[in-house]
Amino acid sequence: MLRTNFRRILATVKEANLSAPIDVKNSASSSHKASLQPLLDIVRSDLDDTNQIILDRMHSDVELIPTLARHLIAAGGKRLRPVLTLGAAKLCGYEGDRAKKLAACVEFIHTATLLHDDVVDESNLRRGNETANALWGNQASVLVGDFLFSRSFQLMVEDGSLEVLRILSGASAIIAEGEVLQLMNVGDVSLSEESYYEVIAAKTAALFTAACEVGAVVADRSTEEIAALGSYGTNLGVAFQLIDDALDYSSEQQALGKAIGDDFREGKVTLPVLLANRKGDTEEQKFWARVIEDNQVDGDLEKALELIEKHGTIGDTFAAAQEYGAKAKAALDIFEHSIVKSALLDAVDFAIERAY
Amino acid sequence: MLRTNFRRILATVKEANLSAPIDVKNSASSSHKASLQPLLDIVRSDLDDTNQIILDRMHSDVELIPTLARHLIAAGGKRLRPVLTLGAAKLCGYEGDRAKKLAACVEFIHTATLLHDDVVDESNLRRGNETANALWGNQASVLVGDFLFSRSFQLMVEDGSLEVLRILSGASAIIAEGEVLQLMNVGDVSLSEESYYEVIAAKTAALFTAACEVGAVVADRSTEEIAALGSYGTNLGVAFQLIDDALDYSSEQQALGKAIGDDFREGKVTLPVLLANRKGDTEEQKFWARVIEDNQVDGDLEKALELIEKHGTIGDTFAAAQEYGAKAKAALDIFEHSIVKSALLDAVDFAIERAY
Repeated sequence: MLRTNFRRILATVKEANLSAPIDVKNSASSSHKASLQPLLDIVRSDLDDTNQIILDRMHSDVELIPTLARHLIAAGGKRLRPVLTLGAAKLCGYEGDRAKKLAACVEFIHTATLLHDDVVDESNLRRGNETANALWGNQASVLVGDFLFSRSFQLMVEDGSLEVLRILSGASAIIAEGEVLQLMNVGDVSLSEESYYEVIAAKTAALFTAACEVGAVVADRSTEEIAALGSYGTNLGVAFQLIDDALDYSSEQQALGKAIGDDFREGKVTLPVLLANRKGDTEEQKFWARVIEDNQVDGDLEKALELIEKHGTIGDTFAAAQEYGAKAKAALDIFEHSIVKSALLDAVDFAIERAY
Repeated sequence: MLRTNFRRILATVKEANLSAPIDVKNSASSSHKASLQPLLDIVRSDLDDTNQIILDRMHSDVELIPTLARHLIAAGGKRLRPVLTLGAAKLCGYEGDRAKKLAACVEFIHTATLLHDDVVDESNLRRGNETANALWGNQASVLVGDFLFSRSFQLMVEDGSLEVLRILSGASAIIAEGEVLQLMNVGDVSLSEESYYEVIAAKTAALFTAACEVGAVVADRSTEEIAALGSYGTNLGVAFQLIDDALDYSSEQQALGKAIGDDFREGKVTLPVLLANRKGDTEEQKFWARVIEDNQVDGDLEKALELIEKHGTIGDTFAAAQEYGAKAKAALDIFEHSIVKSALLDAVDFAIERAY
């Protein structure tokens, strides 16, 4: 079953990848700056309830658990994934309370994966990677992640839908597979584009997919509509991760005082690097091979940024994100026009344009 | 719901703890060396199927996942927890296939917790704690644990019982709470007995409880019978952990070439230490405070063993385990005599006598 889901997601990704290139300039749907605000406005009241459920249900008498969970959860963030569950439910005309609790489940799973991402190895520490877990240690990050993950399944059991449990347990397994795959790919400068998309489809898009599907499931919609919202989520998730990977090399980010180069330091081969390596001459490829395989010295990040700039691979990555964004929008074609649909379309532009 | 379960387990533990002491000499039920063999013989065929399910379902196209999982799962071990699920189902006269798959779920959860236990912090590495994760790193241990945990829930969804999902998601949350609690207690030499039992009830006994309850649930038994098997599991689990904690300071273990003193090095306060500290004079208590708070030097383990021997606290720990073992056996009183019941009673003696 897992394999089937995984394949379906990959198939969606590959299909999108092989489609005709989108004209980047014309694909921005309007002249206004894209915003998540319309969607946030629509789900505002539900999201308040979801936030309350999150706070209530991350409680444990074991104090370190809510303390550490709060560090990540209450720190805010966009709550993009639960917003998608609530938005998808709204698109399907759902008016009940179930989506709020299931949106909290989605956020718990997301937070658990963030906590587990924080876990580092000695080698990473040596590379200067300091994460939130520095405050409490690896073991606490792992265990609190486990708690939130378990709590998420407890909430799903309370909800009582085996279909929801199937979707979210499947997504969780795929996320773990994607993260392991990414780990195995570290330092491999000759990573194929296909392998790169395989990782981001699993580690990021799988939860976007599930978050959207759940919204349609609680509304008792048809298989076709569930699949359409799933496809919207998958393609949005891939676009979102592409932009994340681009931002890690973005000078705008740097100008705003945000850290860049995390992926570079960790030897993660993302699309901007993968393409720069492919477009580079022999000497440049030697550079990439050395730095990605972990022999970095001072000035290497600057050189990497220079080569990425030279070959325009941030632009290529944005273009790919636009392409997936267009697929995400097209997936909603089967739904009639509504303000909710319009807000979900805007959310796609937001996910991409946040880069500019 | 979680809290209720947690409290119920704790209540069982406290009740047992306050009961009249058991005469250790007379509590060994027969003259033969206790063995798990009768129970293993009874579930042999089912266990073969469970092992096959485990091997089949830990598969992933992401090669590192089955490789790493195999390291722990195929390494064998007693499969005590899945054996309990199969045995409990047999005691309840269950003849179907569901228990086999759910026994695999229980083993996956156990393996996930073992993998997550492998995760270490720099401080631990400095203390000389080298675990299986040295082979693949912290991140891989975490992620493969996550995969097995997710896969376990996928198998439960296939089974389709919300009651089973409720029991095992609840147990998983309690296990995480217990592990966090244990982490918070590290280095606290004045830990109360109550706090010690709270940790082992959660980190160990909760899964024993759930493993046994699930066997009764698939057999559609009454709430009373489910609770009785749950109580058997809880008390057996506490006894099992007490013996584990005793073995970590056992000279017999050392004579067999097995490592001892892991808990000591990690600053974990277990019953043998907790009691030795309490019974010690001022100078001895200063010793315990220093070594448990992580200022160990050469010869400290030897001194600790000497004090534990002096105060007979390994014997005290065995006596406590006997007490919980007796409670576990008494919990099965409501079931008629059968060879399965007899084998489950033998399993209790085995869990305790493996120490001798």
